[in-house]
Amino acid sequence: MSTPPVAGASALPLETRAAVLVEAIPYIRRFAGRVVVVKYGGSALGAAGAGGEAGVLARFAEDVVLMVSVGMRPVVVHGGGPQIGALMERLGKTPRFVDGLRVTDAETLDIARMVLVGKINRDIVGALNAHGPLAIGLSGEDASFISVAERDPALGFVGDVVGVDASVPGRLVTGGFVPVVATIGAGERAQAYNVNADTVAGALAAAMGAEKLVLLTDVPGILERPDDPTSLRAALDVAQLDALIATGAISGGMIPKARACADAVRHGVRSAHILDGRIPHVLLLELLSDAGVGTMITSAEER
Amino acid sequence: MSTPPVAGASALPLETRAAVLVEAIPYIRRFAGRVVVVKYGGSALGAAGAGGEAGVLARFAEDVVLMVSVGMRPVVVHGGGPQIGALMERLGKTPRFVDGLRVTDAETLDIARMVLVGKINRDIVGALNAHGPLAIGLSGEDASFISVAERDPALGFVGDVVGVDASVPGRLVTGGFVPVVATIGAGERAQAYNVNADTVAGALAAAMGAEKLVLLTDVPGILERPDDPTSLRAALDVAQLDALIATGAISGGMIPKARACADAVRHGVRSAHILDGRIPHVLLLELLSDAGVGTMITSAEER
Amino acid sequence: MSTPPVAGASALPLETRAAVLVEAIPYIRRFAGRVVVVKYGGSALGAAGAGGEAGVLARFAEDVVLMVSVGMRPVVVHGGGPQIGALMERLGKTPRFVDGLRVTDAETLDIARMVLVGKINRDIVGALNAHGPLAIGLSGEDASFISVAERDPALGFVGDVVGVDASVPGRLVTGGFVPVVATIGAGERAQAYNVNADTVAGALAAAMGAEKLVLLTDVPGILERPDDPTSLRAALDVAQLDALIATGAISGGMIPKARACADAVRHGVRSAHILDGRIPHVLLLELLSDAGVGTMITSAEER
Amino acid sequence: MSTPPVAGASALPLETRAAVLVEAIPYIRRFAGRVVVVKYGGSALGAAGAGGEAGVLARFAEDVVLMVSVGMRPVVVHGGGPQIGALMERLGKTPRFVDGLRVTDAETLDIARMVLVGKINRDIVGALNAHGPLAIGLSGEDASFISVAERDPALGFVGDVVGVDASVPGRLVTGGFVPVVATIGAGERAQAYNVNADTVAGALAAAMGAEKLVLLTDVPGILERPDDPTSLRAALDVAQLDALIATGAISGGMIPKARACADAVRHGVRSAHILDGRIPHVLLLELLSDAGVGTMITSAEER
Amino acid sequence: MSTPPVAGASALPLETRAAVLVEAIPYIRRFAGRVVVVKYGGSALGAAGAGGEAGVLARFAEDVVLMVSVGMRPVVVHGGGPQIGALMERLGKTPRFVDGLRVTDAETLDIARMVLVGKINRDIVGALNAHGPLAIGLSGEDASFISVAERDPALGFVGDVVGVDASVPGRLVTGGFVPVVATIGAGERAQAYNVNADTVAGALAAAMGAEKLVLLTDVPGILERPDDPTSLRAALDVAQLDALIATGAISGGMIPKARACADAVRHGVRSAHILDGRIPHVLLLELLSDAGVGTMITSAEER
Amino acid sequence: MSTPPVAGASALPLETRAAVLVEAIPYIRRFAGRVVVVKYGGSALGAAGAGGEAGVLARFAEDVVLMVSVGMRPVVVHGGGPQIGALMERLGKTPRFVDGLRVTDAETLDIARMVLVGKINRDIVGALNAHGPLAIGLSGEDASFISVAERDPALGFVGDVVGVDASVPGRLVTGGFVPVVATIGAGERAQAYNVNADTVAGALAAAMGAEKLVLLTDVPGILERPDDPTSLRAALDVAQLDALIATGAISGGMIPKARACADAVRHGVRSAHILDGRIPHVLLLELLSDAGVGTMITSAEER
Repeated sequence: MSTPPVAGASALPLETRAAVLVEAIPYIRRFAGRVVVVKYGGSALGAAGAGGEAGVLARFAEDVVLMVSVGMRPVVVHGGGPQIGALMERLGKTPRFVDGLRVTDAETLDIARMVLVGKINRDIVGALNAHGPLAIGLSGEDASFISVAERDPALGFVGDVVGVDASVPGRLVTGGFVPVVATIGAGERAQAYNVNADTVAGALAAAMGAEKLVLLTDVPGILERPDDPTSLRAALDVAQLDALIATGAISGGMIPKARACADAVRHGVRSAHILDGRIPHVLLLELLSDAGVGTMITSAEER
Repeated sequence: MSTPPVAGASALPLETRAAVLVEAIPYIRRFAGRVVVVKYGGSALGAAGAGGEAGVLARFAEDVVLMVSVGMRPVVVHGGGPQIGALMERLGKTPRFVDGLRVTDAETLDIARMVLVGKINRDIVGALNAHGPLAIGLSGEDASFISVAERDPALGFVGDVVGVDASVPGRLVTGGFVPVVATIGAGERAQAYNVNADTVAGALAAAMGAEKLVLLTDVPGILERPDDPTSLRAALDVAQLDALIATGAISGGMIPKARACADAVRHGVRSAHILDGRIPHVLLLELLSDAGVGTMITSAEER
Repeated sequence: MSTPPVAGASALPLETRAAVLVEAIPYIRRFAGRVVVVKYGGSALGAAGAGGEAGVLARFAEDVVLMVSVGMRPVVVHGGGPQIGALMERLGKTPRFVDGLRVTDAETLDIARMVLVGKINRDIVGALNAHGPLAIGLSGEDASFISVAERDPALGFVGDVVGVDASVPGRLVTGGFVPVVATIGAGERAQAYNVNADTVAGALAAAMGAEKLVLLTDVPGILERPDDPTSLRAALDVAQLDALIATGAISGGMIPKARACADAVRHGVRSAHILDGRIPHVLLLELLSDAGVGTMITSAEER
Repeated sequence: MSTPPVAGASALPLETRAAVLVEAIPYIRRFAGRVVVVKYGGSALGAAGAGGEAGVLARFAEDVVLMVSVGMRPVVVHGGGPQIGALMERLGKTPRFVDGLRVTDAETLDIARMVLVGKINRDIVGALNAHGPLAIGLSGEDASFISVAERDPALGFVGDVVGVDASVPGRLVTGGFVPVVATIGAGERAQAYNVNADTVAGALAAAMGAEKLVLLTDVPGILERPDDPTSLRAALDVAQLDALIATGAISGGMIPKARACADAVRHGVRSAHILDGRIPHVLLLELLSDAGVGTMITSAEER
Repeated sequence: MSTPPVAGASALPLETRAAVLVEAIPYIRRFAGRVVVVKYGGSALGAAGAGGEAGVLARFAEDVVLMVSVGMRPVVVHGGGPQIGALMERLGKTPRFVDGLRVTDAETLDIARMVLVGKINRDIVGALNAHGPLAIGLSGEDASFISVAERDPALGFVGDVVGVDASVPGRLVTGGFVPVVATIGAGERAQAYNVNADTVAGALAAAMGAEKLVLLTDVPGILERPDDPTSLRAALDVAQLDALIATGAISGGMIPKARACADAVRHGVRSAHILDGRIPHVLLLELLSDAGVGTMITSAEER
Repeated sequence: MSTPPVAGASALPLETRAAVLVEAIPYIRRFAGRVVVVKYGGSALGAAGAGGEAGVLARFAEDVVLMVSVGMRPVVVHGGGPQIGALMERLGKTPRFVDGLRVTDAETLDIARMVLVGKINRDIVGALNAHGPLAIGLSGEDASFISVAERDPALGFVGDVVGVDASVPGRLVTGGFVPVVATIGAGERAQAYNVNADTVAGALAAAMGAEKLVLLTDVPGILERPDDPTSLRAALDVAQLDALIATGAISGGMIPKARACADAVRHGVRSAHILDGRIPHVLLLELLSDAGVGTMITSAEER
């Protein structure tokens, strides 16, 4: 394989290597054949790690490939808000807002599709396929598998998820492929709409009967006091999560993420996770070791 | 169905309707379950018909849906040269040339992917899905199913097809879907390359064991004397086609089309067709009636 | 294909041909993979069309072959009362009657089986197979798939349908064949019985979960006033049909046909049709065009 | 089961019953899942046994049902020459001959089909189905599975077998059914022809890769001296069989039977048998016990 | 086949052979594809027949092979109490008892496994495989398919059946193999336990949805008066069986056998049989002839 | 999972854990779905590790379970020479020798089967099943899947492998189970024979098309100078291996091991390994890390 092993790995004593691998056994067995939906966030895309953006994406790809290798069935969902804005700017397109929300006219929709489907989706597919012919890109328009309804005529082509045909990504997953999903949905007569990526990830996890939903972000997880990193909540049930939203402890961009997690868990996903995408291989650590990272949301019974 | 029937259709006498349908029987039976690869050209995309561009695409979509309905397995391949140039221009990108060929640097490649995968592919998928959840977009990068090699370092990311994994579109086709293929290929470590769409269509037809390859263009077919529409050759075998290239009767942009047809036929595709995409429903007339349209290329034995 | 195209078809302008084919799209899509049971009546068999009896049967065969070609799954059911009478006469057999109904003794049963299974069934199978190896003849005795009970000892071997094993014709249908069913049923210890063909067609349509039941007759459809062709009822729900029987508007040989339609619809068949088999290609016009012909019976909800 | 056990069976001591069953073990194991083609001859149909004709047919049916029960896959082929002649006579039809062979005009063909498909085939199907829904009648016309060519225009509709589509009876056999085949073949455009039943049985056995071909006749087997029953040859290889034809020891109606056996063996059928259908349960004795009956033909290597 | 036919079998007249085979038809048809669980008892193993122990086992093997040959799916269960005791004695191991029940310490368990899995199971597998590669040995430890719970700590490794995973033997049975099951069960963390063989046979029959449970013993069946062989009850329903236990007519080692039969029948097994394993081929006589042997237990409705 | 993680594992920094897991990716991907045959030696069984014998077996079981978890298909083969000797001794059985080789009479064979099938096989099955219902024990007698021929009448029941029916363990492997194979083979009429376990492992690896054959021993690998541990050969091709046998560098009990490796590689097994079973988790280190352990034998081309 072309990825160079992390420096120092071969220097480890045999017992240490064995210990790590043995520790992974029960997790590998538990998750074999299960779907795990991973939202790879626009922010994570922009987080500059040791190796720069490309390094972040390459490490993320390694984690997904390892998930496949040990028998899990990952599905990647991504958005791309900042990159859409950047292209609009380059094309001299002035954003319009209604009640603080961006209006998506036909041209903006075209730009969003070009960035999401034609650029970010392609980059993720390419990073995964560097390990072998594994990934296939999808948009919710394909076979109209993500159905949406228009949220508000004043906002233009902004949609809310009203249905997911899990058989389209499911067919790929059982064929051994990793679907990489751009969050464009299909409305009446297959009209395209832009949709929130966290919401799509949650709905997809529920529709596919996923074991886990993982949202990669650029924060450590859910903090009881937003400015205090020591107030990280390692585990919450959905009622506790609701309470944190109600009290305002969860606010801003974290609200749709929290809601996506709660909805997925309420529809049968075993656990939802909000992780810090800036930690190298955080996905793999969450999935295959005893190390506790980020915030895990489950049903009250599951706890 | 929402597409309004063509005016006058319902005014036809019963015998006329019956006659047309009965005429279609042997064609439907012969092509049932067979793959037909249709290249939907950049030029055809730009041809302004009675209903404007959207009307052209909508009629093309009707033809493809009818193909599916009678049991054929269409695969759509498309390019998009003019549209790529248009976005480059808007983004203030100055083209560079080497020996008269456009240099595709990393930024140009990004633009090509955004246009092909994120715009044109989406528009075709949408037009088909207006009839139901039928079409799924693909790029040759997906599962690296179109393998390419770099043509010339001086040209940058321009590739030549070296392999096609027919199982990727094949899986969709047997699932009842219409793959719509953007002509980006995958090289070493899944690096993306731009590829000629006619060539991809021919290679795909050969790899999938297609019954037919159809190239939709904006000319009536192959003319013995390029400026004389009455010199249309209705049928050619591959040797005759080679001769027309050798004598210079076929020239310019028609050369890669002619070569793609010849290659496909030499690799077992029963017939290749160069049709005039400006004739409404030309695809359907070629496939389901005794009307002879355009140029058909076959092997000498087949003739 | 050997069937000569109807004169004038090739003279039609391209747009007209395209218009008819495009009009067929939604019907083809709606009926794909669905079973359509067609009762080809003894009377239709005897109706002399332009090409004589053979011409009628050949056109009927074309329609059934087109149904197969566009993905429908036709099942043909036939009777043959007049032809049975003719052979009895030639063999010097004197008919006996009880309360106006013909007594079927063992010899009459033998004659009925020879005519239905050995003659009419063979002729229909042969007309279909002239287009390719499509049709397989069945009798309700085969694997005893049509179970009957004796109606009245005084009538001899006359049976009423008590069960249909849809898997026997179903197996053929999914294998791509057209079952052609002679209406002999199997009683206790596989004893053969003669059965009414309209009733068998209705029961078979219900058992196979058919989309449509079509009875081809030699009248225009159901007339509100039997002698007035302008009183044709184009569409009826089952309650309206019952009412027409109750008032006597439907009488004589039309009663078992009307009842077979009503029973089929009540058991889940989407629509039942009484068509005039004397109109060339009436089956195809009913199935694939907007032309309204004959009488359609549906449930009240379906209307 | 309704068939009464043969008198005396229940009086047998336990050891005797056990001995017979144990003796059958190796035969049952050897023939499990194998196709056995049995020609049930017109003569055997006419042979009067203890229980009359019906008794003969009922015993034959028991044997076939037992074959099915122990895992063999029997296929029954039948002719019906004498019965065709009888119906022709009743219908006042005068036979014509050319060079001593019966001319089959269109009316004679109709009569042959009515007798073979509509009468004899039905009787055999009925006798088998008295034990359960086992048998399905076929004619070589069904899906044109027995292809024939006209022998001689002067003879009319008399055909020679030129091909057998084994998948049509094979589909029934793997579905657990017993095909009962009437020997009408299909020529150009599905035209029906009368064919020799022994020849059909041999060709069918070869095409289906049968283990055995069994011809039930009304003679003890092949006799070295036709009038001397003690000259029965219990086993012959195909060369010995050819020699007996060459010397004239085999003559008359036995010639087509011998040739059918030789052809089947030359095309891979393990053994062919000419048995005396007048011995009760002779089929079962040949197949499941050490008792040697009739004549067995094999290849020289097999011997 | 190598088993010599029973003397005198070939001397039987043809009609007698035919009669026995015909008598078997309805039984073969009824039991085709059905699972029959046969407990081959420790006592039967020790019963000396005409051919000594080996002769008894060889005859039992013939019966099981014939069951397979006619399409049944036999499963053999065996114990081996006396043989375990014998090996313990040879190894100088002194048995300990608690309340009259043998204590199974770790060493005794090892001896039991060696005898059951390593000796008796092997002998039965070998006797069956002498006829071909038919039998595969299993222990309840394999894939832990027989789950047990410890009965009483004072007794050591003695278990009670708490669950059976029928898919493990079922997979072999559908593959055409005969599972031969040694009655060791698996407890917590796969710890082995000794289990009563009659109970395992009953539980296995219930879990596999068996048609029959047959217990081979060394008594004629259930006697109303234990010492009076003429008081054999040929048929009992489960209530009658319970009554005979309650009154003490059934006592000692017959109690677990009676209970296993009653439990199996109560869980859907059609009939349970207690047969005298000393009668040669008793299994085959019970299964394939009208001869009534031993005691049959059914539900009241079944009677 | 109940196995306690190795002390110190949870103390490892996140990067170290990630490094070990990432290092395993290419190995996991390469071996997914591939069969690996592991010979678990009698000597390894007797090697006393930190946790005693049980500890060695438990660690071996962990490695096999991890192999299953990451998608490999392990097959375990075992012998048990020393343990057979021990039981013979306890039973007062005096060994006899011919030309220095132990004579295996019927009683010795019974003892060997009891120890191998009834004791060692059970212990390995149990250790694996402590992690879940994974392992199923087999002996070469089961379905006679290991065919043997008698080596020498003077030696009694000692066999040489002449054939392996890979479908028997293959069926279990594709069902997700781990076959654990005791090395008893089946001769004529299913007679049992004792066979060398190294030879069986090699033949099984070849017959199953295994990726790897691994022999666990109690030496570091193949040494060029038997008494000099620093002379370990890490990699050999089969010709080099043959040379070491010819020169006598390989001798004694290592010869059958070396030959089994060479034979397996010559029959298509990608690599064969002789590892030191005393190193904890040596199997896992060989399979999933860059650490080089023991001796690897490949074809010359493979090197």
